[in-house]
Amino acid sequence: MGEFELIRRYFAAASCARAGEGVALGIGDDCALLALPPGEQLAVSTDTLVAGVHFPEACESFLLAQRALGVAVSDLAAMGATPIGFTLALTIPSADPAWLQGLAAGLDRMAQACGVRLIGGDTSRGPLCLTLTVFGRIPAGQALTRSGARAGELLCVGGYPGEAAGALPLVLGQRQAAAEIAEPLLARYWAPQPQLDLGQALRGKATAALDVSDGLLADCGHIAKASGVALLVEQARLPLSPALVALVGETMARDCALSGGDDYLLAFTLPAEHLADLQAQGWPIHVIGRVEAGQGVQLLDKQGRPVTPPVRGYEHFRSDGD
Amino acid sequence: MGEFELIRRYFAAASCARAGEGVALGIGDDCALLALPPGEQLAVSTDTLVAGVHFPEACESFLLAQRALGVAVSDLAAMGATPIGFTLALTIPSADPAWLQGLAAGLDRMAQACGVRLIGGDTSRGPLCLTLTVFGRIPAGQALTRSGARAGELLCVGGYPGEAAGALPLVLGQRQAAAEIAEPLLARYWAPQPQLDLGQALRGKATAALDVSDGLLADCGHIAKASGVALLVEQARLPLSPALVALVGETMARDCALSGGDDYLLAFTLPAEHLADLQAQGWPIHVIGRVEAGQGVQLLDKQGRPVTPPVRGYEHFRSDGD
Repeated sequence: MGEFELIRRYFAAASCARAGEGVALGIGDDCALLALPPGEQLAVSTDTLVAGVHFPEACESFLLAQRALGVAVSDLAAMGATPIGFTLALTIPSADPAWLQGLAAGLDRMAQACGVRLIGGDTSRGPLCLTLTVFGRIPAGQALTRSGARAGELLCVGGYPGEAAGALPLVLGQRQAAAEIAEPLLARYWAPQPQLDLGQALRGKATAALDVSDGLLADCGHIAKASGVALLVEQARLPLSPALVALVGETMARDCALSGGDDYLLAFTLPAEHLADLQAQGWPIHVIGRVEAGQGVQLLDKQGRPVTPPVRGYEHFRSDGD
Repeated sequence: MGEFELIRRYFAAASCARAGEGVALGIGDDCALLALPPGEQLAVSTDTLVAGVHFPEACESFLLAQRALGVAVSDLAAMGATPIGFTLALTIPSADPAWLQGLAAGLDRMAQACGVRLIGGDTSRGPLCLTLTVFGRIPAGQALTRSGARAGELLCVGGYPGEAAGALPLVLGQRQAAAEIAEPLLARYWAPQPQLDLGQALRGKATAALDVSDGLLADCGHIAKASGVALLVEQARLPLSPALVALVGETMARDCALSGGDDYLLAFTLPAEHLADLQAQGWPIHVIGRVEAGQGVQLLDKQGRPVTPPVRGYEHFRSDGD
């Protein structure tokens, strides 16, 4: 059996794992076919992860696959979409059965957690690189875009930002920590859980949303630009992860929360009247600031004075000089 | 302006080039949104092209882009789908403005020819690699799969197979030829025209179809396997490209036609009663054999006797040892 036949077998198994609501024809033909309920639209997003740029070359294939799919599906969460399926374009330098088995298992773990099914793909020999394209469905007109924020609304985030960036020294083996500190941080990095339920709960309530991949301040900048508003981030309201503070201290934890990437938490703007209901339903929503007329993102210190933070896009595992 | 900002500009321009029927939200948010007419399904396919594996590393970016998109859209043609849009995941070692401009122009040329619009993407630094995911629409139940061929039907191909494989020595600069011979062959390689109109004309008529990417015999094997039938390819009926015969002679032209890949012509099975109508409408349909009970693909020589050809998947630009 050729190596690529082996790959097809692993992925064929993964693609059959679930019934796949919305998938009319799965892997194995020239195209997959997706069927949408009447009145729904299809949400589509593509993400590429390159070895040595987005993840360490030597990382375990199980972890890599789990993270890659979580990151990709997070874009569906950010639109408020219900996941359907994904395609995987994989290039690998060689086909090691144990490595591939780990990859298939990691994909399967995250696919089950997210309710998606592998519907197609392409495998090539080449430098290690994964491109995932994810598909979800959403009632027409209810998608959470980046462009609807209005002055007077609240700026919110769906958890503790910064944990993934704080985990990077642990990921790279540059640092050790006690299990109760290291494990939640490493899990945030290696198994980001797309906030799908939160995204769907925000339909019809949040006016703009995205998932934080490049850093909270940088990503808030995308909402500010698309909506034509200013976003004020209040340092006093920024929630800090206890595990992160325990690992790196409060100052560095705040830097990670403001500028670290890879968290894949939702950041969104919300008219104030929706806050109490959503919090009462148990959603982990932290108000971190507000929307005003103007443009750009402004960080306010604990006294409410503007500060000039180092607002730069997080450059993932390795700076690429961009 | 950062290099990646430059890329976003090139692609933003390409994405606005057409109105984009079916695209409810294009590039620039967490997801794109596609809307389908009632009763239609979405066809999806992903293709990866890796430098040094699927194309020569030094090839012109305009040609590369044009070919990559043509190859990807060809999978929509093979299902009988009407194209909507595509995403591009691009990894590049460095961002050279002239190279990127060529890439954007090549994408735009083929996108206009195919009626697709760029709806999203991801750009990373890394080894040169393109992954395109294409989207089309098709009335539910009318997709041309690989699995419906039945004994007694005709086996057909939508043109002269083998031209792209025959062009490879010209592509690689290993050979020269007069313009009237070289140009059509090089065009077949660098600008494959997806047979979208033919695919749509075959809806409700062809019982199985695919686009020839790995070689006619190898790809017929996919139909035979998916449909549970035997396909007989009759050498006497195999159409040979005049330009190809002029370049390499009849024997080599036949080998290219049977085993060469990269043509992206449609191969399909057809109940005989549909043939005359389709040919009268001007479709370039050549009958090359027939469907029988059994399994696998059998080549018949000019006297109708079984021959054992070197049935191997075409390995594109470079053998990868698979």
